[in-house]
Amino acid sequence: MAAFPERVKNQAPLIHNITNYVTVNDCANILLACGGSPIMADDLQEAEEITSLCAGLNINIGTLNQRTIPAMLAAGKKANACGHPVLLDPVGAGASRLRTETAEKLLKEVRFTAIRGNISEIKALALGMGTTRGVDADSMDAVTDDTLDAAAAFTGAFARKTGAVVAVTGAVDMVTDGSDMYVIRNGHPMMRKVTGTGCMLSAMITAYLAANPGCPLDAVAAAVCAMGICGERAFSRLNPEEGNAAYRNHIIDAVYHMDGKTLEKGAEFRKYRLEADGTMALSEGEQP
Amino acid sequence: MAAFPERVKNQAPLIHNITNYVTVNDCANILLACGGSPIMADDLQEAEEITSLCAGLNINIGTLNQRTIPAMLAAGKKANACGHPVLLDPVGAGASRLRTETAEKLLKEVRFTAIRGNISEIKALALGMGTTRGVDADSMDAVTDDTLDAAAAFTGAFARKTGAVVAVTGAVDMVTDGSDMYVIRNGHPMMRKVTGTGCMLSAMITAYLAANPGCPLDAVAAAVCAMGICGERAFSRLNPEEGNAAYRNHIIDAVYHMDGKTLEKGAEFRKYRLEADGTMALSEGEQP
Amino acid sequence: MAAFPERVKNQAPLIHNITNYVTVNDCANILLACGGSPIMADDLQEAEEITSLCAGLNINIGTLNQRTIPAMLAAGKKANACGHPVLLDPVGAGASRLRTETAEKLLKEVRFTAIRGNISEIKALALGMGTTRGVDADSMDAVTDDTLDAAAAFTGAFARKTGAVVAVTGAVDMVTDGSDMYVIRNGHPMMRKVTGTGCMLSAMITAYLAANPGCPLDAVAAAVCAMGICGERAFSRLNPEEGNAAYRNHIIDAVYHMDGKTLEKGAEFRKYRLEADGTMALSEGEQP
Repeated sequence: MAAFPERVKNQAPLIHNITNYVTVNDCANILLACGGSPIMADDLQEAEEITSLCAGLNINIGTLNQRTIPAMLAAGKKANACGHPVLLDPVGAGASRLRTETAEKLLKEVRFTAIRGNISEIKALALGMGTTRGVDADSMDAVTDDTLDAAAAFTGAFARKTGAVVAVTGAVDMVTDGSDMYVIRNGHPMMRKVTGTGCMLSAMITAYLAANPGCPLDAVAAAVCAMGICGERAFSRLNPEEGNAAYRNHIIDAVYHMDGKTLEKGAEFRKYRLEADGTMALSEGEQP
Repeated sequence: MAAFPERVKNQAPLIHNITNYVTVNDCANILLACGGSPIMADDLQEAEEITSLCAGLNINIGTLNQRTIPAMLAAGKKANACGHPVLLDPVGAGASRLRTETAEKLLKEVRFTAIRGNISEIKALALGMGTTRGVDADSMDAVTDDTLDAAAAFTGAFARKTGAVVAVTGAVDMVTDGSDMYVIRNGHPMMRKVTGTGCMLSAMITAYLAANPGCPLDAVAAAVCAMGICGERAFSRLNPEEGNAAYRNHIIDAVYHMDGKTLEKGAEFRKYRLEADGTMALSEGEQP
Repeated sequence: MAAFPERVKNQAPLIHNITNYVTVNDCANILLACGGSPIMADDLQEAEEITSLCAGLNINIGTLNQRTIPAMLAAGKKANACGHPVLLDPVGAGASRLRTETAEKLLKEVRFTAIRGNISEIKALALGMGTTRGVDADSMDAVTDDTLDAAAAFTGAFARKTGAVVAVTGAVDMVTDGSDMYVIRNGHPMMRKVTGTGCMLSAMITAYLAANPGCPLDAVAAAVCAMGICGERAFSRLNPEEGNAAYRNHIIDAVYHMDGKTLEKGAEFRKYRLEADGTMALSEGEQP
């Protein structure tokens, strides 16, 4: 995995973000931290032109509106035409018809390289149902060791249907292209207390995809592991008076210092094959 | 007062925020810090649906525009229909006709549980006049011991007129439902050097209201005391090289660590009755 | 130079910002840090009224859109009518037709007191060409000792054409009114790893202009030196675990502590005359 973050630093991919105004500053700073370069542009009149200049596109529907939805569609199609990786972060899909339908429309009209969401968002899109509670995953949907197989089945099917690498992040992370699946156990529960850790990860994944073409499954998994490790390292820096504001800063700072060696050493994952019947089997070489 | 913050932590109320893009990230992080959960959604096409999922609504007109004003009105009415607490933060009322008239329209069409602003904003709405200097209170309007009685009179009348708990925050804070008034002396002058301490407080008040139904006056007062205490504690953490950026983070971190015991111990307030002639009398049990 | 930051602190100028949603919070906090007071308002219905209340206007096209462009034009003309200083930050000019044409339209319809951008943005506007790479300067455009003379020539010509003080910031900063030019060597390369250091500087320059009327060249140069010194001081505070998130906070904190004495002592600049043939000559009294 060590090569993935290094390539981001060496290539400094310019990433076009059409994203929400809640966490946009953190997305810009985490892109700079990992070695990428951010540009935010959400007006239809420039969306295609800006995306043409870039190496990847990150579409996040967190504060979607009537003005920005057409820009998302236009930029997505243009990025497809340019052969750039495109990521969808379907923030709050399942929580409103506007969000669910916009995500569905984007999935219909744009080919996504990757889709990253919490389990409730992915469930809403994969199964046409779900109990998205605002922008956070519903606790009823949480992926645990008991529910991992079931979650893997519909996530894998969703990846096959969309042709995208699907990343479901939470206490346990799943990253799959429909054939293989990384189950990742990095991260820290306190990451849920910082707004935008998901948005930041989506931005960073886009940079990893742009700088590591040809291996989207591994690139997404590497970015997910990197973010989790940064959550762990940031937590270890917290002093007793510090809370979620300091933690946010420490996470971005940890990304700033993340390198191939740290990723290689800290990544906690196992790789599985997804069988035809939807069950998971450890990939060759993985210890049971 | 100790029960108020604990109930927020236990219930994790989901709060719908239609708020300005200047301080929105801090509002999201302070909601997470106090134990709530934030969602931001400002498009008319989803405003009612999102607010239905939530436990409270925070309307902040800080960067209002033609697209978001209808969403504020629709969400406010829907929250009323759902029986959810609704807060108005009339940022900059008095500074432009658009802000004053939008606040007035909201007050006419939506029943607010609470209204929080600085003295100039509240004066502009309560008296139809004022000298709002941008988004900060005008120094001529500052509430001091000398002007407290006069400010209490029009603030109490405004609370009776609107049926809302009115919180005027500044060097001295007043929280009143028109019958009783908390005069609160927590906080630190340096809070004025951090953008959005008022916006953050409004978001937090909404979470306190949502998790503590049936006692809006006390819930608002508890949140105002809590924020003030956090301002004090954050200031005590500052080292000589730190300034307003560190202070912002320390304030949110202090909210993260705020609990019932800390609130109980640190709250500096006195409770008064508002007499029919507009004067204040110490409530029973209060030491003169 | 010592008087410039002190006047900002004494006068607390209210600055109207029509700026991008990526870095808007940092712009607000840096204005508070330097002693100014921020207000953000970008709707056409209030842009003129708000700017009338203020002492200066900062127009930043970083996330321009069809709704905010008319507000920029209206506010700019009104600020001209009021005699307020107006600054243009042409973020991403050269990267899309919308940005380039909007900047050109603003330059045609509004008289700017100052224009601050990176070398690629200024080149795009001054020469009608350029290789703006997103919102960062293209490395091919970087101002070095070798390219300083050429850059000075077109920057000076652009200042004469627009009547504005032009500030090109990067590894080496140039500030010119077309007759004289400050070449400033404060700052630290890591400032490029923080989103919005340029936006923040533009906001701060506007406050310096508002509080120091009659000497825009020197006021802009003072603000540029101040920001560079803060970048240096912030860097010296970084511990090995800290990255660009901590650095952002340290920069704002350094601005909070910046005073006339620190500016006087830390400013690293030389002043040149721009000759009729476009070459630079050291101003009288400057050591060669």
